[in-house]
Amino acid sequence: MLFTAQVKVMPLKELLDPQGKAVLSGLQNLHIQSVSDVRIGKHIDLQIEAATKEEATAIASEAAKKLLANPVMEMFEISIN
Amino acid sequence: MLFTAQVKVMPLKELLDPQGKAVLSGLQNLHIQSVSDVRIGKHIDLQIEAATKEEATAIASEAAKKLLANPVMEMFEISIN
Repeated sequence: MLFTAQVKVMPLKELLDPQGKAVLSGLQNLHIQSVSDVRIGKHIDLQIEAATKEEATAIASEAAKKLLANPVMEMFEISIN
Repeated sequence: MLFTAQVKVMPLKELLDPQGKAVLSGLQNLHIQSVSDVRIGKHIDLQIEAATKEEATAIASEAAKKLLANPVMEMFEISIN
């Protein structure tokens, strides 16, 4: 069965996110003032061939740990459809 | 009230995603063979001060249209918590 895994990779809360800060000041220059904080990460869609949802989750998790996320700076979350 | 808007910005389906293709071949080099396709986009968390959920959605949508997504190459989806 073909599963779609959505992996969200975000910078750790403890760390500064310079890209997010740049977008925040960009929004303020556009007079969008109600936004108080911005954090930017990656969204990765994986098409995974697996027998069960659990197997697909395990494969997505292995991919995230080995390649998609840098654990020193980033956390990841996986959801499977 | 403070809302968190999650904006997912992905490359349009019709377009090649060279970053995704590079990650796909990286996964194959790591012997993760069950992944058949990868697409990579951005995930943006916005903290929005608004009276209602509808107002927060409108602000996030304005931000996405004006700054976060390039409509020629990208589509976006908004979800509010």
